[in-house]
Amino acid sequence: MAKEGADMTEETEYMIDRNVGKETENVETSGDAKEMRAVILAGFGGLNKLRVTKKAMPEPQEGEVKIRVKACGLNFLDLMVRQGTIDNPPKPPLVPGFECSGIVESVGENTKGFEIGDRVMAFVNYNAWAEVVCTPVDFVYKMPEEMTFAEAAAFSLNFVAAYMMLFEVANLQEGMSVLVHSAGGGVGQAVAQLCSTVPNVTVFGIASCFKHAAIRDSVTHLFDRNVDYIQEVKKISPQGVDILLDCLCGENTGKGLSLLKPLGTYILYGASNMVTGETKSFFSFAKSWWQVEKVNPIKLYEENKVIAGFSLLNLLFKQGRCSLVKSVMDKLLCLYEQKKIKPVVDSLWALEEVKEAMQRIHDRGNIGKLILDVEKSPTPLMASDSTETSEAGEEEEEPEGDNDSKERMPFIH
Amino acid sequence: MAKEGADMTEETEYMIDRNVGKETENVETSGDAKEMRAVILAGFGGLNKLRVTKKAMPEPQEGEVKIRVKACGLNFLDLMVRQGTIDNPPKPPLVPGFECSGIVESVGENTKGFEIGDRVMAFVNYNAWAEVVCTPVDFVYKMPEEMTFAEAAAFSLNFVAAYMMLFEVANLQEGMSVLVHSAGGGVGQAVAQLCSTVPNVTVFGIASCFKHAAIRDSVTHLFDRNVDYIQEVKKISPQGVDILLDCLCGENTGKGLSLLKPLGTYILYGASNMVTGETKSFFSFAKSWWQVEKVNPIKLYEENKVIAGFSLLNLLFKQGRCSLVKSVMDKLLCLYEQKKIKPVVDSLWALEEVKEAMQRIHDRGNIGKLILDVEKSPTPLMASDSTETSEAGEEEEEPEGDNDSKERMPFIH
Repeated sequence: MAKEGADMTEETEYMIDRNVGKETENVETSGDAKEMRAVILAGFGGLNKLRVTKKAMPEPQEGEVKIRVKACGLNFLDLMVRQGTIDNPPKPPLVPGFECSGIVESVGENTKGFEIGDRVMAFVNYNAWAEVVCTPVDFVYKMPEEMTFAEAAAFSLNFVAAYMMLFEVANLQEGMSVLVHSAGGGVGQAVAQLCSTVPNVTVFGIASCFKHAAIRDSVTHLFDRNVDYIQEVKKISPQGVDILLDCLCGENTGKGLSLLKPLGTYILYGASNMVTGETKSFFSFAKSWWQVEKVNPIKLYEENKVIAGFSLLNLLFKQGRCSLVKSVMDKLLCLYEQKKIKPVVDSLWALEEVKEAMQRIHDRGNIGKLILDVEKSPTPLMASDSTETSEAGEEEEEPEGDNDSKERMPFIH
Repeated sequence: MAKEGADMTEETEYMIDRNVGKETENVETSGDAKEMRAVILAGFGGLNKLRVTKKAMPEPQEGEVKIRVKACGLNFLDLMVRQGTIDNPPKPPLVPGFECSGIVESVGENTKGFEIGDRVMAFVNYNAWAEVVCTPVDFVYKMPEEMTFAEAAAFSLNFVAAYMMLFEVANLQEGMSVLVHSAGGGVGQAVAQLCSTVPNVTVFGIASCFKHAAIRDSVTHLFDRNVDYIQEVKKISPQGVDILLDCLCGENTGKGLSLLKPLGTYILYGASNMVTGETKSFFSFAKSWWQVEKVNPIKLYEENKVIAGFSLLNLLFKQGRCSLVKSVMDKLLCLYEQKKIKPVVDSLWALEEVKEAMQRIHDRGNIGKLILDVEKSPTPLMASDSTETSEAGEEEEEPEGDNDSKERMPFIH
């Protein structure tokens, strides 16, 4: 596995040099006034494929909103994008990132509903990790006044995904039970909060032991992912659970289905929501993702069970369900204003710290969401720390910038 | 295929003779006062395995209700039971039938909620096709005053299944679209009626051409099952449908999934609900049932789709969800009393006509439900008719009673 990772890094090395050259050219021709800082993925591979560079600033097309970005969300999917292990990845060099918050700087022709100066959060089909981004108006939402930019960047993907899985795909109702993997991650914490808005819902959370103290109050029962939680859940609820949310962390589909009550729903949600990939190795994760076992519909018939897949990004960017997502966002913002839900921010990172932020997700160290804070300067190193951050399956052949980086103080809300 | 059917009949021939002997013994020892008429399936096989005979009358155990049966529902599942093609069938001889209506004759110890003389409808785990049946109180429901016994026997399985699929498994809402196979059958007609209780729902029905005139008004769009309805539906609704109900009539799962909108739900419902198995041959049906292709969860993830199985009888008799079914029945009886739904009865048959009734389901001749009317005498033959009723894949080696039976006048509401 490690060998495979190293190979992948070497293969893309040529591409990086060539593409980085191109990138520099683009910036030079576009002039100083229209430049911006952005995180660039020069080619698929390890952390060394990421750098912060100047880039031509985009201008809004018809129907688009131009946003001066304040904060961006960092998701497990971004790690998969970096490695090129998603289906049909765009060709690098590219600017990663699918969600951000900021201030409207201008709007394209025939773009209604937003004014210059509006505080907004937005979905973007790549390109979020930059000082400025343009995205179609259908993906932009006004922020509540009391919401910070960091909260807004932590809100969109996680809460919309959690809400749609619980209430649109499944049909969460009073008295039901929900099991969620990666309970400490951004989606997991959103699921736990949304479950608490329905009376008498039991939440079983699976998380690494070291997170238990921090998240114990957010769920009803908490299990270590290294124990046989199937047996533990059955001790408490012999019939099983009504809803099971599996971020495909190497989990066995059949094992999960066996834990469902009759009429229960098993939802495989994916990459975009996997803020914490609770896996030992990135590569074993990618392997399990594509090798998930098939399901026999006759078994579903006999057992009265439901299996569903959920990908919010596909829903938004490939399947055109913006208006449904908009209506979900409206409901969520109501819940936020009623103080029933509140995004959990794990830590804030400068754009220049993107590698360390990614390493933190990779190491499953986060509780809640990691945020890139565009206006933040890199935090001084903590003298006491000597953690190595070399990533499983890759070699840092091209150390640069803060290559001797140490762990930084996370910003916990 | 026909060969296979003939073999099956021959194999069970010995069992019939032996078992029928036992059955007769039972009746003789129990005395005249406690005898009743019942349809007996002597062994698995063709129509000739069915006969009406006297049988010891059951007495209610603790928690059971004893019902003087007036009418019984006949379902496609009963054909599968007859052939022994269901999973883990009980050993014949047995009395088929899963639903009936009638009058409470007595109740067992500690059985609350029913009085002698109550008009009721009930689910029974076999044994419904008899003059008297006992079943646990959890499976018994009081009939509305204005409901006839025939309607009640046509109501339970079809409407509960249709309601639970539309509203519990899927989440039918205003403006959605539903595709239903076997639109002319009992479940199909229940689905169409329930869809009409939600504003602006589009129903695509698939049915054999000869039923179109009779059911055209019950659905929005009607297609012949022999045309490429996938293409026809896509012409009207390019994005597909929100809910697809497939009674596994030889249908290809992948083809059905391709017709779903993002977030759409594909429900495989089975045997118990297949009042009209829209298949050319019973055996090709049974084959397709067990050979249905497996589903890749990754595909569900990428396409945001849901696949579910639904078996009401398993839910009731194996999975103990009586209280949920009770709450569904309460809602359905409200809709019935508001005259928003009304079971469609295809025809009434005497117990002695059970073979012809089964043949009618096999030939897919029915629109709505076939009912066994326990108090009915066999209808005189119509002189004009000369339809042969020998069933695909079986030989009537043992003709008896009304073996020269002709098609009878169906009773259409």
